[in-house]
Amino acid sequence: MTQAVAGVDLGGTKIQAVIVSAGVVVGQSRHLTPNTNATDVVAEIVASIRSALDDAGLAPSSLSAIAVGSPGSVDVETGHVSSARNVPGFMEVVALGPTVSAAFGGTRVLVDNDVRAAVMGEFRQGAGRPYRNFLGVFVGTGVGGGLILQGELHHGGGNAGEIGHTTVKPGGRRCGCLRLGCLEAYAGRQSIEQTARVRVEKGQKTKLFEIMDRKGRDRVTSSVIADALEQGDRLTIELVDEAVEALGVALANAQNLLDLEAIIVGGGLGDRLGQPFVRRVERAMATNLRFPERAPAVLGTELGDLSGAVGATVLVEDEP
Amino acid sequence: MTQAVAGVDLGGTKIQAVIVSAGVVVGQSRHLTPNTNATDVVAEIVASIRSALDDAGLAPSSLSAIAVGSPGSVDVETGHVSSARNVPGFMEVVALGPTVSAAFGGTRVLVDNDVRAAVMGEFRQGAGRPYRNFLGVFVGTGVGGGLILQGELHHGGGNAGEIGHTTVKPGGRRCGCLRLGCLEAYAGRQSIEQTARVRVEKGQKTKLFEIMDRKGRDRVTSSVIADALEQGDRLTIELVDEAVEALGVALANAQNLLDLEAIIVGGGLGDRLGQPFVRRVERAMATNLRFPERAPAVLGTELGDLSGAVGATVLVEDEP
Repeated sequence: MTQAVAGVDLGGTKIQAVIVSAGVVVGQSRHLTPNTNATDVVAEIVASIRSALDDAGLAPSSLSAIAVGSPGSVDVETGHVSSARNVPGFMEVVALGPTVSAAFGGTRVLVDNDVRAAVMGEFRQGAGRPYRNFLGVFVGTGVGGGLILQGELHHGGGNAGEIGHTTVKPGGRRCGCLRLGCLEAYAGRQSIEQTARVRVEKGQKTKLFEIMDRKGRDRVTSSVIADALEQGDRLTIELVDEAVEALGVALANAQNLLDLEAIIVGGGLGDRLGQPFVRRVERAMATNLRFPERAPAVLGTELGDLSGAVGATVLVEDEP
Repeated sequence: MTQAVAGVDLGGTKIQAVIVSAGVVVGQSRHLTPNTNATDVVAEIVASIRSALDDAGLAPSSLSAIAVGSPGSVDVETGHVSSARNVPGFMEVVALGPTVSAAFGGTRVLVDNDVRAAVMGEFRQGAGRPYRNFLGVFVGTGVGGGLILQGELHHGGGNAGEIGHTTVKPGGRRCGCLRLGCLEAYAGRQSIEQTARVRVEKGQKTKLFEIMDRKGRDRVTSSVIADALEQGDRLTIELVDEAVEALGVALANAQNLLDLEAIIVGGGLGDRLGQPFVRRVERAMATNLRFPERAPAVLGTELGDLSGAVGATVLVEDEP
């Protein structure tokens, strides 16, 4: 019988699931994250795994394990998650691992940090393979980061990688974390949407929300932003310019401190805007480098939307 | 016969030398760094080692090795130094190691990065002993940094630790490196002095330069700044406030990214202003932390002025 592992990347906007068998992605699915409550979100995670199994043509009984990468504070021992601001109901403690396990007849479920999963995915199977020292920065609903140093994931005291909450502009735009001037306040999609709404209220014109409605979305997704950019929407251009500048400062600060070999830019927005965005971030970073002649490689992800979900399966393989 | 090692810390303002024998500092000396040219600076390094030997009551022949921590770009193989902006003549390549060696009859001379030396000094023999993950930040003429990660000095590609040139205020004060808004532009003593001169030209009043003259200095040293603060000099208070704020941003950014156990604040200015300054930096950092409830320990150095010189001798001991 085929043995397979399910990997899930839980995001504020979407839930991406993959089925990996013998190191190959044999099935996948993507569901929108419900914007209601934790119960609905966990049910949608279960549904996304079932869809991916259908896509693979496999029965739930073929799963040897399920791995979920989640934002927020993850208790790896219990599979409980909390403090995930961008997922409805996940500020409170959610028994994510046990609930998913029960839905699959007690199958083993590993829950870990979503960004850690994505970084490990790129490190083992993606753009990070050639490097032993790199930063992965994931620009999506929020902005997360993870470091591979000396060939290992850098945990620090357990919360390393919070590049989204490094200050790029003291006294600047208010972040969802309530502090001022964080990278995420400029580059996170949720903040971009909120800032756009405020500017519209103040009378600025934009096609952003028209495009959102036309695409049948109830929030500004990465593809909504991409379409608005392509249509030359001035407000969107301004906000993406500010995101690029903010990333330039934060990535250069990380580089000046750590002297890395590479920086990998991914996440929903990073992947969707692709190489032109990555190249702009690279140039913005270069102007802030202490040693511009020794700049790190700046790359997009290779696994793209699947970094986090595939990475979660990597974490299962690494488990003792 | 007594076997001893000389350690030297070359700074933009002072040259600190120690003689270490059997792990104990048995002699020391401090000379001002000549503000003329590289030849004079190297001669003063030699003179400082001779003074420290005199202080120890030892002959030059008792030295088994000499270790010099230098700012700028250090070629550890050849003992050559360059690109040290804060030391007169050291932007060009200076044959520091060979010249010092010749002055001591061919004694082995190791030249390494000054900040690396200071961090290792605190790690092995100072405030860093309890930790495996910490940042040392040295606030002197400029601002340098060094990271101990997983119990080892983090080199990255060879230039890690440049926290002085992380951006704390985009578009802010111009740094000696010509970029805008670096930490060093706010917290480095040379920049504090230059900013004070500009403000005096614009009509602001200060006792800073009077105090400097009275102390017979030709530059604003750490003790000049300390005296001006004690006398309630408003301009000095303003500039030190700005230094504290800038350090708060840069250290929080490092902490958010790396989740360290401790941050050790030293350097000429850090050591001279001491605990009140360290506590202020700690508070300024706390307001910028992602997880303020898990703040790192923020400590002064234990070796103080001697971190760099003692640390240089540690690097000799570590040599294969």
